[in-house]
Amino acid sequence: MNYGIIKRTLGWLLLFETVFFCVPVVTALVYREQEVYHFLFTMLGTAALGGLCLIGKPKSDKIFAKEGMVITAASWIFLSLFGAIPLYTSRCYPTYIDALFETVSGFTTTGASVLASDVVAALPKCILIWRTFTHWIGGMGVLVFIMVFLPLCGGGRNINIMKAESPGPSVGKLLPKMRSTARVLYLIYASLTALQFILLVFDMPVFDAINAVFATAGTGGFSIKADGFAGYSTYTQIVVTVFMALFSINFASYFFILRGKFKEAFSTEVRVFLTIVVSAITLITIDLCITDVMSIGGAIKHSAFSVSSIISTTGFTTENFDTWPSFSKTILVLCMFIGACAGSTGGGIKVSRLVIAGKGVHHETQRLLHPKRIKKITLDGKVVEHEVVRGVNNFLIAFISIFVLSLLLISLDGKDLITNFTAVAATINNVGPGLGVVSPAGHFGGFSILSKIVFIFDMLIGRLEIFPMLLLFAPATWRK
Amino acid sequence: MNYGIIKRTLGWLLLFETVFFCVPVVTALVYREQEVYHFLFTMLGTAALGGLCLIGKPKSDKIFAKEGMVITAASWIFLSLFGAIPLYTSRCYPTYIDALFETVSGFTTTGASVLASDVVAALPKCILIWRTFTHWIGGMGVLVFIMVFLPLCGGGRNINIMKAESPGPSVGKLLPKMRSTARVLYLIYASLTALQFILLVFDMPVFDAINAVFATAGTGGFSIKADGFAGYSTYTQIVVTVFMALFSINFASYFFILRGKFKEAFSTEVRVFLTIVVSAITLITIDLCITDVMSIGGAIKHSAFSVSSIISTTGFTTENFDTWPSFSKTILVLCMFIGACAGSTGGGIKVSRLVIAGKGVHHETQRLLHPKRIKKITLDGKVVEHEVVRGVNNFLIAFISIFVLSLLLISLDGKDLITNFTAVAATINNVGPGLGVVSPAGHFGGFSILSKIVFIFDMLIGRLEIFPMLLLFAPATWRK
Repeated sequence: MNYGIIKRTLGWLLLFETVFFCVPVVTALVYREQEVYHFLFTMLGTAALGGLCLIGKPKSDKIFAKEGMVITAASWIFLSLFGAIPLYTSRCYPTYIDALFETVSGFTTTGASVLASDVVAALPKCILIWRTFTHWIGGMGVLVFIMVFLPLCGGGRNINIMKAESPGPSVGKLLPKMRSTARVLYLIYASLTALQFILLVFDMPVFDAINAVFATAGTGGFSIKADGFAGYSTYTQIVVTVFMALFSINFASYFFILRGKFKEAFSTEVRVFLTIVVSAITLITIDLCITDVMSIGGAIKHSAFSVSSIISTTGFTTENFDTWPSFSKTILVLCMFIGACAGSTGGGIKVSRLVIAGKGVHHETQRLLHPKRIKKITLDGKVVEHEVVRGVNNFLIAFISIFVLSLLLISLDGKDLITNFTAVAATINNVGPGLGVVSPAGHFGGFSILSKIVFIFDMLIGRLEIFPMLLLFAPATWRK
Repeated sequence: MNYGIIKRTLGWLLLFETVFFCVPVVTALVYREQEVYHFLFTMLGTAALGGLCLIGKPKSDKIFAKEGMVITAASWIFLSLFGAIPLYTSRCYPTYIDALFETVSGFTTTGASVLASDVVAALPKCILIWRTFTHWIGGMGVLVFIMVFLPLCGGGRNINIMKAESPGPSVGKLLPKMRSTARVLYLIYASLTALQFILLVFDMPVFDAINAVFATAGTGGFSIKADGFAGYSTYTQIVVTVFMALFSINFASYFFILRGKFKEAFSTEVRVFLTIVVSAITLITIDLCITDVMSIGGAIKHSAFSVSSIISTTGFTTENFDTWPSFSKTILVLCMFIGACAGSTGGGIKVSRLVIAGKGVHHETQRLLHPKRIKKITLDGKVVEHEVVRGVNNFLIAFISIFVLSLLLISLDGKDLITNFTAVAATINNVGPGLGVVSPAGHFGGFSILSKIVFIFDMLIGRLEIFPMLLLFAPATWRK
C-alpha cells in the first residue's frame, strides 16, 4: 500500500475543502449571519491539516487499483467528517452524528435529512447553501474533479482512480487521455448547471435558484423550503423536472451530441432509460386519475416531477407520494432501485447494469435451448466481456447483501417494515425520501444512532458503487 | 421438439393422477362423504385422457434439455389443472381459479390458501386430504417420482428431466445410475415420512397425523385446523419443528449418513443452513423476550417453530408472527427468501445458491486487490465451474425480475405494500403465509383474478426453479 500518495491526495483534498467553504462564508457575509465563524474555524483546521499532509514527498507516485479504491473511499469520508463540523458547532444539528449524516447525505447527493422540512427552512442561509453545495461537489464525483488537477498530486497513473470513481460501470473513453475526458465531463456539468440557473433565476429569488441548481445538478435533493418544490410555479417545476432527467443521462451522450454523433448519443442505455421514464410517468398518471387522487393536469405534472426526481435519485418533491395508491408507490420504489444512467451524477443500480444483467438471463435461456451454440453478449454492437457481466452480477449480489444487512440492523429500531425498506432503499440508492416515516413529509431524525450510522455507510456504499467501500474495510487490503 | 414423447409422458402422468385420486376417494368412503363422486368423475376423465395420450408410439424416445424442461413444466400445470376439478365441482371453492390456486399451491408445496382457516377446517375430509396429499406428491418432485417408473414411458435419456426437476442447483450424483439416485431419494423421503407419522400418531388423531405428515414431508403447509398447529400439544409442535427442518436438508446428507460418511453429510450448505436456523431462532427469541411479547419458554418454542416453518418454506404456524416486532418479522421475511437446502423438498432461493453467490462476490473483491492472481471458486474442496456460478447469478437476476413484475401486477389490487411484497415472496418461495392481509390470520381469497393468476405462475416458477417455466413460454422453444 502506497501510504505516501494516499496522505498526499487527502492533503490536497482538505485544501480543496477549505476552498469549498468559501461559498458558505461568502453567503454568511452577504446575509450577515453569525455562523460564519464556524465555517472560518473549520477552514483553519482543514487548511492546517491539509498543509501538514503535503509535507514530505511520497516515495513513489504509483497508484494501483488498491490505492485508487482506498483514496476514493477515504476522500468521501474525510470530506464529510470535516464538512459536518460547522453544522454541529453552529448547533443547527443536535449531535455530530446528525451533522455527519446530513453532510454525507450532501456529498453522496442523497438528500435525506435528519431535520423536519420546516426546521430546514428556518436554517441560516450559509448552512442551507453549504448543504446544497455539497451536492454539487459530490455530484460529479470529488475525484473526477480532483483528477483534473491531479498533476498537483504528483501525476502518475490515475486510471485506477477513474475506475473506482466513475459513476456506473462505463463512462467510456471519450477522449484518448483520461484527463481530457474528465475535463469534458466537468465542462458539460458546469454548462448544464449554468443553463438551468439561467432558466430558473427569472422565476425565483437568486438564492433559491442557486440552491435548486446545485441540488439538481448533483441529483442531490436537499430543499430549502418547508414544502419542497410544491410552492414554486409550474414553470419552475417543469424546468426542474427536465433538468433532473438531463442530469441522470450518461454525460457521454451530450459529448456525442456536441460532435453530431446522434446514433452514439442515443445508446441502448439512454433509450431504455427514457422508455422507463415515459412508461412510469404514463402508468402513474393513469393510476392517479383512475383512483381519483387528482385531475389529469395535476397527475401529469406531479407524476412527471416525482418519476424524474426519484429515478434520477434527486429526491425533490411537489407532492407527498406516500399518500398515492399502491401501484404508483410500487413504481416509484422500483425507480429508486433502477436509478440513473451510468456516467451521470445520478445514483441507484444504474440502467446499464440492469440491461447487461437482463441480457445475461436471456443468454442463459438461449444456452438451455441450444447448448452448443455459444454467443457473446453484445451491447450497442460491442461485445460485453465476460468480466463485465460477472462484475455486474457480483455488484448486484453485493448490493442485495448490504441491503439485507442494513435492513436487519435498522429493524432493531422497531419502525414499520415499509419505513425500514424504503429508508435503506432511499439511502443506498442516494435518493433521499422514502415512504412511511421517511416519506417526503417525514425525515430521518427519529432513528437511533446505530441506524444513522448504518444509513451513513449505505449512502457512501451507494455513491461509491460498493467495492471501494468494501475494500476499505477488508483486512486483505491492509495486509502486506 | 419431440411432441410424441411429451404426449406420452403427460399420458402416463394423468394415469398416475388417476391413482393419486384413490387417496381422497378412500377417505370419502371411510367418512361417507358425498364429494366422492366429484373425485370419481375426475378420475374417469384423467384415465380416459391419459389412455388417449398413450395411443401410438413416439417416433423417437430422445429427450433433450428442451423436451425435459417442457415436460417438467407441463406436468405440474396438467396435474394442477385436473387436480383442481373436484375442488371446484364440489363447490368447496367459489371459482375454478380459486380451486386451481389451491391445487397449484398444493402441488408446488406452497400451502397458501384462498380460504380463511376456519372455512378450511370445515371442508370435507376427502378435500382436506387431497390438499395435503398434493403436497406429498409435489414435495419430492413429480418427475423424480415418475423417473423411477420411466421405463414405462419408453426409457431413453432421462438425465435432462432430472436436470430440470432436481430441487436446487445440485442434488449430486449419489449413485452412478440416475434411476438408482431417484430411488434412494424416494426411499429417504418415504422413511422420514413414516418416522414422523409414528412419532405423531401417538399424540393426535390418525387423520390429523396423516395430514400433518403429508404437509410436512412436502414442506407444504396446508393445515386442517382453524388455528393451525397452535392447538396441538407442545410435543407435536416440537416433532413438527424438527421434521420441517429435516425435510429442508439436502437428502444427499441422509444418504451419506447411512453410509457412515459424516464429513460429506455435513457439507458447507448444510452447515450454513443450520447456522442460519440457529441464529434466526436465537435472535427472534431475544427480540420476543426483550419486547415483552412472550416469556422465554414460549419465545423459544414459537420462534423455533416459526423459523423452521418459514425457512423450510412449509408455512405451518403456531403464532401469528405478523404481530411480532419488526426485527423478528424482518428475519422471517429474509428466511422466506433464503429457503431450504438444494436437494430437499423445500423451496426458496436455496442456501447453496446463496453460498456460491457470496463466494462470487468475495472473489470479485480479491480480483480487485490482486488482478493477476486468478483463483477458482471452490465449495467443499471441489471447484465450482464458471458455468455454475453464472447459472446461479442468472437465476438470482431472473428471480428478482419475476418478483418485481409480479409485485407491480399485484399492486394494481391496491393492497398495502407489505401485503403485496410478502404475498409474492410467500408464493414464489413456496412458503404460504406472509404478512398483512396474507398473514397466518389471513388468506389469499381477497385478491383479484389477475393477482391469483400471477400467484399461480409465481408458485410454479418458484417450484420449477424458474427456467423450465421461462422456456415453456419462450417462443424460441417452440420454433422449428
